[in-house]
Amino acid sequence: MASAKRPGEFELIRRYFAPLAAATPGALGLGDDVALLTPRAGTELVLKTDGVVGGVHFLTDDPPDQIARKALRVNLSDLAAKGAAPLGYLMTCALDASVDEPWIASFCAGLAADQAEFGIGLLGGDTMSTPGPVSISIMVLGEVPIGRVLRRNAAKPGDLVFVSGTLGDAVLGLKRLRGRFPAMPKAESDHLIDRYRLPQPRLRLGGALLEEGLARASLDISDGLIADLGHVGEQSGLAAEVERDRLPLSPAAARALDEDPALIVDIVAGGDDYELLFTAPAAARATLADLGRRLNLRLTEVGRMIEPSGSSPGTVRLLDGQGREIPLARRGWEHF
Amino acid sequence: MASAKRPGEFELIRRYFAPLAAATPGALGLGDDVALLTPRAGTELVLKTDGVVGGVHFLTDDPPDQIARKALRVNLSDLAAKGAAPLGYLMTCALDASVDEPWIASFCAGLAADQAEFGIGLLGGDTMSTPGPVSISIMVLGEVPIGRVLRRNAAKPGDLVFVSGTLGDAVLGLKRLRGRFPAMPKAESDHLIDRYRLPQPRLRLGGALLEEGLARASLDISDGLIADLGHVGEQSGLAAEVERDRLPLSPAAARALDEDPALIVDIVAGGDDYELLFTAPAAARATLADLGRRLNLRLTEVGRMIEPSGSSPGTVRLLDGQGREIPLARRGWEHF
Repeated sequence: MASAKRPGEFELIRRYFAPLAAATPGALGLGDDVALLTPRAGTELVLKTDGVVGGVHFLTDDPPDQIARKALRVNLSDLAAKGAAPLGYLMTCALDASVDEPWIASFCAGLAADQAEFGIGLLGGDTMSTPGPVSISIMVLGEVPIGRVLRRNAAKPGDLVFVSGTLGDAVLGLKRLRGRFPAMPKAESDHLIDRYRLPQPRLRLGGALLEEGLARASLDISDGLIADLGHVGEQSGLAAEVERDRLPLSPAAARALDEDPALIVDIVAGGDDYELLFTAPAAARATLADLGRRLNLRLTEVGRMIEPSGSSPGTVRLLDGQGREIPLARRGWEHF
Repeated sequence: MASAKRPGEFELIRRYFAPLAAATPGALGLGDDVALLTPRAGTELVLKTDGVVGGVHFLTDDPPDQIARKALRVNLSDLAAKGAAPLGYLMTCALDASVDEPWIASFCAGLAADQAEFGIGLLGGDTMSTPGPVSISIMVLGEVPIGRVLRRNAAKPGDLVFVSGTLGDAVLGLKRLRGRFPAMPKAESDHLIDRYRLPQPRLRLGGALLEEGLARASLDISDGLIADLGHVGEQSGLAAEVERDRLPLSPAAARALDEDPALIVDIVAGGDDYELLFTAPAAARATLADLGRRLNLRLTEVGRMIEPSGSSPGTVRLLDGQGREIPLARRGWEHF
């Protein structure tokens, strides 16, 4: 089916997708059925796939370049958490009738910008039509030295829990886009919306944590701090405690929380942060402080891993300044 | 969002998807962010991704196990065409509100059956909700000896063009499902519908073509014989001729064509065959006949690669018994 609004499949590939693969030798110019990849000796491949659907993971009037970059970055964020270096990606795009050529041009420009930023290229893909909303699936490939990948299941009792950057910005940015916080200063509003639209995969941090042997368990925060720390706990057979007063917040998020303390649930359970959460022994504190300065990235100790003693592994308690548990109506994002 | 019709995301993964990954060591039990894969020494990875959308690539009331198997098999078919041995796959599923637990159980049972048939396992994936139709993206990984992959661009002038199996069954099966050929005997109708729903990736053939050095160019027929042979021609800088009277047809397709000669367009340009098309020097004829007998798979010489001499590379002419060109209103399937 040719659409009046855009060229046919092969022409689209030639104009917009093939240039994204031009510098990727294994992509074979998108002119064959498959892509080829030979990992370097001593490394193993790290594979991740994650998709986004219009109206579920992004707003259908979000700028197409930012939809593309977010779809790519949520995958790169997982590689970052594992300490992996990205190699390339494959992508399937299901496009609905509303997608015209300028949309595709912007979408691919976003991918090109991020390819340059992260030093990767398109390896292959598939473009389809759909009667439903636009949906994008991306599969990234990365590499780690064999046996060195940072897992979720390696936390030890007494480990400190660290997070990078600030928490809750993205979920507050989404609320802002939906009309909340109408009196928020524009700079703060822009900051939150940018954090929603454009996650920052912490690849340099993940790479350094692996190389320098600083982290035990690691993952990225996509479901929310409480849920994702729960995943580390489940996989490591431990519980965890988080101190509310230690949570790293942007000025915008801190002010919003001051004005409405109920937002704490969104901040710790809203998801979409794409910051790294990792555990490390207390002895690593000073080295991590130094690493944060080197990377110019805030690294904050927010809690600790403990023996479950009575509670199930994966239990996470959020504590107030007096050590009392703060009840949470939600624990994290579930896709359905 | 929890749906009344099915359990939440994590429970679905535990019940249905994790068992598909249980025997795949690199899948880490689907309990981490990523999957790991170390290719064997001397091999390179072959990557392919292809998606299917409800109402576009399958009918929404198709049996879920067959939707799953087809989604996997269209990808395996590309590996087959390249001579690659499959290693595993990742999958993203966008599920709409109509998908209940029995649907998912059947879908995953289909995947389990094909995992056993093709000796592969699930490596990872992502499950999402969508307001649109169900859509599935699968990314398969395979391996070939380094530098040996069967490409599209390696055909030589004078090469014979071979296809496996029979052509046109799937597209006629789809027409049957939509109500055409009401008087067709049930056995023939069942055959065509089965060919539409359940492609047979020709992995043993592709592996043998690579190992025994029998094929020059190779791909799988997904867009239709004429379009896919055109891809070989474009990539190899050649034109091609196909003889209508040599086309391998099932008894059902042969009878349908007898009754309605206009169906020739569907047979050569309808797509969805998932047979292999490959080129080989004339000297390979006898060895290929022997290979077909060993594999119990029909291999038919249908035409030849020629110098383009005047026409553009990629030009494909379909000839009748007198060597006259048969005009074709369509050349192949385009996704939009």
